[in-house]
Amino acid sequence: MGTFALKDPDSIGVAFLGVGRIGRTHIQTLAGIGNARIVVVADPDLAAAERGRDIARAGRATSDPLEAIGDPDVEVVVITTPTSTHASLIEAALRAGKAIWSEKPIALDLAETDRVVTLWREARLPVQLGFMRRFDPGYVRAKELIEAGELGRIEQFRATSRDTYPPSVDFIQNSGGSFLDMCVHDFDLARFLVGEIEEVSAWGDVLADERFREGGDIDTAVTMLRFRNGALGVVEMSRHSAWGYDIRTEVAGALGKVVVEAPHKTQLTFSRRFGFEGDHYESFPDRFEVAYRLELEAFFRTLAEGGTPAPGPDEALETLRVSLAAKRSWLEGRPIRLDDVTADVPA
Amino acid sequence: MGTFALKDPDSIGVAFLGVGRIGRTHIQTLAGIGNARIVVVADPDLAAAERGRDIARAGRATSDPLEAIGDPDVEVVVITTPTSTHASLIEAALRAGKAIWSEKPIALDLAETDRVVTLWREARLPVQLGFMRRFDPGYVRAKELIEAGELGRIEQFRATSRDTYPPSVDFIQNSGGSFLDMCVHDFDLARFLVGEIEEVSAWGDVLADERFREGGDIDTAVTMLRFRNGALGVVEMSRHSAWGYDIRTEVAGALGKVVVEAPHKTQLTFSRRFGFEGDHYESFPDRFEVAYRLELEAFFRTLAEGGTPAPGPDEALETLRVSLAAKRSWLEGRPIRLDDVTADVPA
Amino acid sequence: MGTFALKDPDSIGVAFLGVGRIGRTHIQTLAGIGNARIVVVADPDLAAAERGRDIARAGRATSDPLEAIGDPDVEVVVITTPTSTHASLIEAALRAGKAIWSEKPIALDLAETDRVVTLWREARLPVQLGFMRRFDPGYVRAKELIEAGELGRIEQFRATSRDTYPPSVDFIQNSGGSFLDMCVHDFDLARFLVGEIEEVSAWGDVLADERFREGGDIDTAVTMLRFRNGALGVVEMSRHSAWGYDIRTEVAGALGKVVVEAPHKTQLTFSRRFGFEGDHYESFPDRFEVAYRLELEAFFRTLAEGGTPAPGPDEALETLRVSLAAKRSWLEGRPIRLDDVTADVPA
Amino acid sequence: MGTFALKDPDSIGVAFLGVGRIGRTHIQTLAGIGNARIVVVADPDLAAAERGRDIARAGRATSDPLEAIGDPDVEVVVITTPTSTHASLIEAALRAGKAIWSEKPIALDLAETDRVVTLWREARLPVQLGFMRRFDPGYVRAKELIEAGELGRIEQFRATSRDTYPPSVDFIQNSGGSFLDMCVHDFDLARFLVGEIEEVSAWGDVLADERFREGGDIDTAVTMLRFRNGALGVVEMSRHSAWGYDIRTEVAGALGKVVVEAPHKTQLTFSRRFGFEGDHYESFPDRFEVAYRLELEAFFRTLAEGGTPAPGPDEALETLRVSLAAKRSWLEGRPIRLDDVTADVPA
Repeated sequence: MGTFALKDPDSIGVAFLGVGRIGRTHIQTLAGIGNARIVVVADPDLAAAERGRDIARAGRATSDPLEAIGDPDVEVVVITTPTSTHASLIEAALRAGKAIWSEKPIALDLAETDRVVTLWREARLPVQLGFMRRFDPGYVRAKELIEAGELGRIEQFRATSRDTYPPSVDFIQNSGGSFLDMCVHDFDLARFLVGEIEEVSAWGDVLADERFREGGDIDTAVTMLRFRNGALGVVEMSRHSAWGYDIRTEVAGALGKVVVEAPHKTQLTFSRRFGFEGDHYESFPDRFEVAYRLELEAFFRTLAEGGTPAPGPDEALETLRVSLAAKRSWLEGRPIRLDDVTADVPA
Repeated sequence: MGTFALKDPDSIGVAFLGVGRIGRTHIQTLAGIGNARIVVVADPDLAAAERGRDIARAGRATSDPLEAIGDPDVEVVVITTPTSTHASLIEAALRAGKAIWSEKPIALDLAETDRVVTLWREARLPVQLGFMRRFDPGYVRAKELIEAGELGRIEQFRATSRDTYPPSVDFIQNSGGSFLDMCVHDFDLARFLVGEIEEVSAWGDVLADERFREGGDIDTAVTMLRFRNGALGVVEMSRHSAWGYDIRTEVAGALGKVVVEAPHKTQLTFSRRFGFEGDHYESFPDRFEVAYRLELEAFFRTLAEGGTPAPGPDEALETLRVSLAAKRSWLEGRPIRLDDVTADVPA
Repeated sequence: MGTFALKDPDSIGVAFLGVGRIGRTHIQTLAGIGNARIVVVADPDLAAAERGRDIARAGRATSDPLEAIGDPDVEVVVITTPTSTHASLIEAALRAGKAIWSEKPIALDLAETDRVVTLWREARLPVQLGFMRRFDPGYVRAKELIEAGELGRIEQFRATSRDTYPPSVDFIQNSGGSFLDMCVHDFDLARFLVGEIEEVSAWGDVLADERFREGGDIDTAVTMLRFRNGALGVVEMSRHSAWGYDIRTEVAGALGKVVVEAPHKTQLTFSRRFGFEGDHYESFPDRFEVAYRLELEAFFRTLAEGGTPAPGPDEALETLRVSLAAKRSWLEGRPIRLDDVTADVPA
Repeated sequence: MGTFALKDPDSIGVAFLGVGRIGRTHIQTLAGIGNARIVVVADPDLAAAERGRDIARAGRATSDPLEAIGDPDVEVVVITTPTSTHASLIEAALRAGKAIWSEKPIALDLAETDRVVTLWREARLPVQLGFMRRFDPGYVRAKELIEAGELGRIEQFRATSRDTYPPSVDFIQNSGGSFLDMCVHDFDLARFLVGEIEEVSAWGDVLADERFREGGDIDTAVTMLRFRNGALGVVEMSRHSAWGYDIRTEVAGALGKVVVEAPHKTQLTFSRRFGFEGDHYESFPDRFEVAYRLELEAFFRTLAEGGTPAPGPDEALETLRVSLAAKRSWLEGRPIRLDDVTADVPA
């Protein structure tokens, strides 16, 4: 990976940026990773930075992320700040010659993402984006079976994602909308498991929560995918679910199919009144708890081994293009070919 | 139901037409229905008719279906002949004043189906079509929960249908194609469980079996549905499945969702080598064995009680229109509104 | 099978004895079996016999079972009368040279059962007892896997049986008690799947329903089994279950295990409030509906093919001995070897 | 809890004793617990101690566990040394006034365990033993439902435990045998979920691995339990399993039952060739990974909150008595009442 070299693969100096909700999860995970040593925790809210420092028994806290990036003892920057800051912080870290792990997305528009990808290609530094599902053991196993040819030629892809709690109005308006904020995970899995996408056709509507309409967004959608290899796919999305976090993915081929689905959260079945009951996961923190740990472990292990972490900015860019195509398809009421996604959809 | 009246609700005289593969299943079922008495079995192949007569301990066999329909002891005509004969036999039975149970479809084109529906409306006779899934206990329960409001407002519908064995070339060319022959069951369930459909958008391709291309058909498809009540749906189809008959249906609403899915055929799990295994159903005869019995039982029970059997020709017509819309959407590469399905797609 | 020969294997004359609750199920099943022709239906309650005749479209009804057995057109006697009459009716049918299908048990005591077995050995006539679970597709598959060596040497057996509705006091007092009436099915499966039993040790108690204590019986029990081949087993029993009919069986060997278990009655899952729900079977009529049909079909098919139906009286006798051993173990508070079950437990 | 008081509940000084296989798991877990600060790591093998120190970024390493216990900065001693050393190390820690978390068992005989319990009662110090299953979310939920009365009066308990890999001969001879080493977890769950046990009756044999016979042990067993509250239970055990780690537990009451069972390790189902497949857990480290973390977290949280950790030595003693009773029942071929377990079974 370019000229990047670690001083001590067993003790990698880390700057941790952003101690919000997901940040607190990540910093705790990081504290348990053997070869990651958190040098500095940064958050514009210094108290938050200090809480992060204490959780992780890190060296120091600062309110200035750029100062943290610049710390000479820092070799890796971990970014879990709000989406709107990702691109500029990644750029700053790249310019400072640091390796980067960042929450997705790089940015919500194509131009900004393109610029980061270009800089990354020049810098030749290790960068990994937070598509955690790729590290969930179920999806990892699915990928293995597909690559081993156990499914034969892939013919169909199907994903359903329903989130339990609709986000706030504020979040809706800054998220790029449901295709970019939520379907993006399924589009990324589609690419990860089946391959590149050629064309999409999306329908969406507001069926449950009028706040989405006010935010120019939808709460329910279905998107058809046509893959370059000929396979057909479909992605269902809902922003609310009365029965819990509902994430299911299926890949079907000539020889077999795999279904990744987690019906039970707790491994207990309760039978009464002529029936049985079990519980579903509540949301992404419990469903993907293991994946959040494994994606960070993989990043630091790959760094230590001198490998190239993935998924990198190029993957994030391609997945963004699918999201943008789906959004445009919904807005324009017609299928969109990925080849035509060369500029951003006007807001 | 019009002027139709049974002589003896405990012993209803039946003419059974058509002793092919599915016919043999139906006639055996009929033999076990307490208030159905098979007077005559008809099949152009007299030997087949006689086999049917023997299986059912019926009165007599004939090679002439019209003669069987005309038998004065016959009150009900059960039609399990090839698709191309359905419409004319239904018309003959209606003109003879008989009640009818017929395998679906009425016909593969709109004009012919329309004509039968018109005749049926005038005749005011009880007619039920063979959409057996509506009688499967899982779908019955789904319908009950939806009608009881347990799911709240319906927001999403999803169906997957994969058949184990691709049909013969001959069959392909006379079936109306995969949207009419196979997706039709899912479109019918969509209407049964969620309501009328406003618009469809379908993609299809030949991914596994070139014979479908030669027959002007596809073997893989995905169709988006927009329901009049706002719900969005999707129907996946594949004409072959290496893992068995794969039929799953899901309805999701504001309060809950139902999934109808039959993973196990045999209620046995075999564990070995760090894993477990179970079997899938092989095809429709084993998966819907119970439904095939229940649809016929319901028909004769409804007749005996003087009720109106369902689904009738009007339901079959509406479901056909969805199939035709999907086929046209695939052929024309654009969404099709159901309102525009007023004439048949040119062959 | 001795000198027994059918006049016409495609149309076997049957006397059907006993039109009680289970009898009505069996006679309906019989009506659907192609090569069984019910000549006469007998029940001391003539009205019941006539109802049975009408259900099955049988020839005639009588209140005298012995007269029915003696009918020269009768080749097979089907016995679904109360338990206390089984032995004498089987004996009468054997003496009349008829083949027999009878509900289990032959009798509740060893002496009477022994006498019937001896007579059967002399008569060399086809006799099958109603251990329907042996015909359930799950248990059939388990047997196949075991016989094919897929499980390796069998090491453990486990069965749980919980019935939904406790029987009436009257029934309790005439059933021989829970070890003979209910555990008997699991003991029979143990022998069917694993082999002969050498020793049992049983504990029982009344935990839920004091009527069982008054009837000298128990409502809850656990029995350890030691098989002659060295395997160890356990059978759990409860006479009531608030969550439905709860029948599960497991066989574990050196290479694999099989579990026969039917969680779902209806193939529908309902998700709401962060969880999912499904239904259990209600009782034996729905759980073993298919097995009740298959056991009779197998009997008539075996007769037609000139084979020896099973399980016969010898199997019923061995299974009874296990039940009696378990009952004695419970009463005497010590393990009982099967070799010591040579006389009945005093009432 | 007596006079025990922490200097700083947010930073509790810990001595970690024993860095073997399970020790390495525990020390990594401990490193991620926010309020646990590992002061010193001890192992007679100094290199192992140093590895532990590095994993946990602990203060120092030593080969002398007693020296570590005596460190004035140490408030809590965590013991994961070989079984034979548990009792003396617990005693040393109690005499030094330290709180203790120790792997189970305290000891393999009653006299030594009794002595530790007596000392603990006098010392009034917080001690928790490593019965990790009590912290598994499935068992926690089972306990909640039982305590909330959702199951009604408990009537039956059932547990199956099959371990994937048989232990070494050396381990067998020092483990106290299968009733003490393996059934102990199920006996503990029985007490945790249902209540105290009055009587046991156990059968065991060597069916698969003759090394167990040489070690005076068995590899297959079944044990009946009679609880003081009248419930009946059964525990199945096997020391090897070709299909993976097979741990299932069930509690049935008048109103409902709970089943704790983990069929899937990976949340993926692979369908092919008319069937589906999934994987089982491999062994306790993957099946109870979460429980191993939760038991340590609960201990340190309880300490910080000034509560009394459980299960304590009194619980471990009672569970040991059940194991000893089962072992004696197997050896003497008769039921054993817990009241009679007042002295150890002669080796």
